Amino acid sequence: MSEHIRQTQPFRWDGVEVKPYKGEGAHFAGITRQVLFVGGEGLGCELRYFEIAPGGWSSLERHRHVHAVMIVRGAARVLVGHRILDAGTHDLVRVPPLTWHQFQPAGQEPLGFLCMVDCGRDVPERPDAEALAALRRDDDVATFIRA
Amino acid sequence: MSEHIRQTQPFRWDGVEVKPYKGEGAHFAGITRQVLFVGGEGLGCELRYFEIAPGGWSSLERHRHVHAVMIVRGAARVLVGHRILDAGTHDLVRVPPLTWHQFQPAGQEPLGFLCMVDCGRDVPERPDAEALAALRRDDDVATFIRA
Repeated sequence: MSEHIRQTQPFRWDGVEVKPYKGEGAHFAGITRQVLFVGGEGLGCELRYFEIAPGGWSSLERHRHVHAVMIVRGAARVLVGHRILDAGTHDLVRVPPLTWHQFQPAGQEPLGFLCMVDCGRDVPERPDAEALAALRRDDDVATFIRA
Repeated sequence: MSEHIRQTQPFRWDGVEVKPYKGEGAHFAGITRQVLFVGGEGLGCELRYFEIAPGGWSSLERHRHVHAVMIVRGAARVLVGHRILDAGTHDLVRVPPLTWHQFQPAGQEPLGFLCMVDCGRDVPERPDAEALAALRRDDDVATFIRA
């Protein structure tokens, strides 16, 4: 990886590919992924930039690894556990281990956020019918989630 | 750590202490440190925010661990190895293992940058007279560095 990667347009970087968020599926919408830093010798973590278009959402999921997030573009509504957070630009969001979470843009601007994770991490789990029913017991959460 | 930490003023966060960059010394100037994410269960890395006032500089040093940096406020001139990079807001800088580096603001605005590192990392080394002489063989580097 180069020692210096320039931003070429807002939230786009020289030589950094704008990729699909995940391989396939209908459990997410309007979201792209850019890997800004990969791990390697002397670095056991990655930094990714995700961008969600208005009306889109990230996968509703949980896993043992932590997400350390900084909003850098627009504003977010974020499910973390059974709470919905309203997070503005430069706010920080920590998703603890095994905690259901989903990111959505707040309003009509794209939502962009940095997400730091360990390179060695477990595969996300999506909620089964029982887990979904438990989440939906809260009216605000029921209205919020896309699954 | 809380799941949601709000930015309270530009580049200041609720409950995140603005700390000295390092304990003591004259090998740095005008620089503060804020730890945005600490490691723990499910996260083996940290995210720090450093801010350098105009005329200030970070320590000239090297170490085995990598720095993965995103400029988020102002612009930087950065020594990485024997090159001086001009990095603007949102540019990315990767400092490879055992590579001499120093950050300085470009111009009269504060320089703020995110720096991702592994939690388990080695202690930085500062240049001895021989290493300094080698760095100073390049006129641009000689003019740039503060040590």
